[in-house]
Amino acid sequence: MKKEDNFSEWYNEIVELANLTDKRYPIKGMNVWTPYGWKIMLHIDSYIRKEFDATGHDEVCFPLLIPETEFQKEKDHIKGFDTEVYWVTQAGANPLDIRLLLRPTSETAMYPIFALWVRSHTDLPLKTYQIVNTFRYETKMTRAFIRVREIHFFESHTCHVDEADAQRQVEENFAILEKVMKPLCLPYLLLKRTDWDKFPGAYYTVGIDTNLPDGRSLQLGSIHHYRENFSRPFDIKYEDLQGDLKYVHQTTFGMSERLVGAIVGVHGDDKGLVLPPEVAPYQIVIVPILAKGIVEEVTLQAREVKDELATAGLRIKLDDRDVRPGSKFYDWEIKGVPLRLEIGSRDIKQGVVTYARRDSGEKGTVKRTDLVRKVTDILRSISDDLNEKANKNLADSIETIENLDTLPNKIVRFGWCGSEDCGHEFENRTELKLLGTPYVKESFRGDCIICGADTDTAAYAAKAM
Amino acid sequence: MKKEDNFSEWYNEIVELANLTDKRYPIKGMNVWTPYGWKIMLHIDSYIRKEFDATGHDEVCFPLLIPETEFQKEKDHIKGFDTEVYWVTQAGANPLDIRLLLRPTSETAMYPIFALWVRSHTDLPLKTYQIVNTFRYETKMTRAFIRVREIHFFESHTCHVDEADAQRQVEENFAILEKVMKPLCLPYLLLKRTDWDKFPGAYYTVGIDTNLPDGRSLQLGSIHHYRENFSRPFDIKYEDLQGDLKYVHQTTFGMSERLVGAIVGVHGDDKGLVLPPEVAPYQIVIVPILAKGIVEEVTLQAREVKDELATAGLRIKLDDRDVRPGSKFYDWEIKGVPLRLEIGSRDIKQGVVTYARRDSGEKGTVKRTDLVRKVTDILRSISDDLNEKANKNLADSIETIENLDTLPNKIVRFGWCGSEDCGHEFENRTELKLLGTPYVKESFRGDCIICGADTDTAAYAAKAM
Repeated sequence: MKKEDNFSEWYNEIVELANLTDKRYPIKGMNVWTPYGWKIMLHIDSYIRKEFDATGHDEVCFPLLIPETEFQKEKDHIKGFDTEVYWVTQAGANPLDIRLLLRPTSETAMYPIFALWVRSHTDLPLKTYQIVNTFRYETKMTRAFIRVREIHFFESHTCHVDEADAQRQVEENFAILEKVMKPLCLPYLLLKRTDWDKFPGAYYTVGIDTNLPDGRSLQLGSIHHYRENFSRPFDIKYEDLQGDLKYVHQTTFGMSERLVGAIVGVHGDDKGLVLPPEVAPYQIVIVPILAKGIVEEVTLQAREVKDELATAGLRIKLDDRDVRPGSKFYDWEIKGVPLRLEIGSRDIKQGVVTYARRDSGEKGTVKRTDLVRKVTDILRSISDDLNEKANKNLADSIETIENLDTLPNKIVRFGWCGSEDCGHEFENRTELKLLGTPYVKESFRGDCIICGADTDTAAYAAKAM
Repeated sequence: MKKEDNFSEWYNEIVELANLTDKRYPIKGMNVWTPYGWKIMLHIDSYIRKEFDATGHDEVCFPLLIPETEFQKEKDHIKGFDTEVYWVTQAGANPLDIRLLLRPTSETAMYPIFALWVRSHTDLPLKTYQIVNTFRYETKMTRAFIRVREIHFFESHTCHVDEADAQRQVEENFAILEKVMKPLCLPYLLLKRTDWDKFPGAYYTVGIDTNLPDGRSLQLGSIHHYRENFSRPFDIKYEDLQGDLKYVHQTTFGMSERLVGAIVGVHGDDKGLVLPPEVAPYQIVIVPILAKGIVEEVTLQAREVKDELATAGLRIKLDDRDVRPGSKFYDWEIKGVPLRLEIGSRDIKQGVVTYARRDSGEKGTVKRTDLVRKVTDILRSISDDLNEKANKNLADSIETIENLDTLPNKIVRFGWCGSEDCGHEFENRTELKLLGTPYVKESFRGDCIICGADTDTAAYAAKAM
């Protein structure tokens, strides 16, 4: 399995070999979260909770089902989703009077209630989030974590007194995003989507994109400013200091289990997964190297090492199966455990533990007496190196082009006058997706790659996953 | 609002006043988890995770939707649920070939996959659990947390080599249950359900019942032994040591958001909620008692106290709103915060903090220098006292009766010969629900309350919520 040769096949094979998910569930695109994959997801969720709680967001949980009547209130929104929602039409033996849909996202579930929660300026900002299952009837080929029909989803929804305060929330979301992505070691671009590609109902959408080894981009999530686009149809108003009724301005921020897919795709190698220590179900696996006459001593030592590291709060697996060490190495490499510790007779004699890093393959020894501190250092260093490597990788995967003669198999950057006509023509001629323009303006001076007009705006495009 | 006078009205009012849930969602019986209610639920979930992880269960997450074809494999099971499931019949604009139902419980979602996961005796026991949303189309009157149509649900599912090992799992589940219920301060009875009331498809069902102040029983969950009732239709087989293929024996254990309803109903009083410290979103509320000339000193002191307690890992709210202390007391009493601390000028002079317990109303002072230790002691004592009070309350709510002449408004205990005829006649004449017989046999000698036959079995019955 070569990652570089055929990323798509490699991805499917690794996900299966590492037993991250079970795709044999009898509904296509609805997969079973196995214990190993689910633990990774729960660790990611815990980082999301931590950062949203720390910024004064309240966790809520809204119902899954949405009445068709609520769903239809915002016209662009329903147009964007109506070909991909699941409909509940019957309960028990009775057909329902009003059809219910499974949430594809929760605007139309939440906003009728926000209209009741928001009364006065003192209720604002209203900052909420939830972590729930959402549903989209995907017609494209499904792929574990990346394109599925039941989606483990995080979404924040906020209401503000005005456009500027909502804008401040968008900026706070970028700061939260940075903190959430750090432990996942995932770099990303913040690209303001084109008008024809923004979220249905949004004022503007910022896509969060990363790169995959086959030159494709992968959208990890998005941050939206809604202005009053939803508060008007859902009648979310507040009384301001002067006693006037005003519509709130809203933002949302959504990310999904695609983060797991990105961790697989960005960090993995030909041997299997490479998990960042912060999200790994096991950060360390201990493999005792047994030989005649020292079985008991090694076993005892391995248990002591395990207890010591576990007491320090690290997540440890002691692999005491009755199989050869080489076979254990192989299994845990597939599973991407960041650090392997080996304990054999020579290690014990020398008062050390042998280690092997999953990311770099680097081997060495650490003193038994200094174990916790050293192991913690190595894990931190793995995390730093994964971040650095992925950042470099993303930078290398972007190429600035000046014409469409030969397109590199990369994310491309080019001058764009900003007109919809040139945008569409670019997409038609290249068959790439125009991802948008950098949210934080980049210094650029050049010609629109289509019409040749002078422009200070660079746009990004790629084959999108 | 008097709890004793009209429990049902009191319950609805308290749930609303404390803002535990929002029932205004436009689908009946599907309520919004508000931040306060959801925090309580997440604390309960964390105790469930802790105990199931500690006993070697793996957390998984199976899809919500189940194909009708899988659902129909176990005949009793579908008969038990077919009037109360929601059906997805359409995706986008297309009718589905095979209808999908929203899980009412996950046997028929999990077991086709268990048939793939279980191959050999070395795969057993298979111990899994998940925390998910489930759906039942309730036709009875809905009630927050107690009878809803989207249910926050916990379910464990296990597979074993034989009936005895499954039986050991049932016993382990009782031990887990005890540990989960302790921090919730909820006492319960373990009653083996009658054959006509067991879970559809089960070999036997043990109901977990508690009592409500109006004499009713409230089922909090159940533990089931399935024998081979599901493994045969779902073909879950393993190869034993001799190379023979055998069907697994299975157990399940389920509990739901009813635990939140029970906490409201069992512990609450006429002033509002009374939350056990272990599940309270805020364990302590600090109310500064401001007066002219000491505002800054009191405010500073309150913040210091808050930081000190928060650093010790306690969940604290400092209520610095610009309203009178009495009004703050009232609000936090409704919300059931276990302990209130008051800090005023006299407290500061004397180097103390005044406290008031929510459960008993007891007031006193603790030395400022000994704050963390004392406050921790008081919280533990609140938890112990709530447990003791609830236990006594449950014991007092059970009355042994010898005839049906006058029925007390309680859970009744009586002789039962065990026959289905006498059971049904009892239910018909009393309009009570026969809850079953104690799982752990009680010493009893008497006559069947219906046929008069000599029996050593006591049965329990009550008006069920």
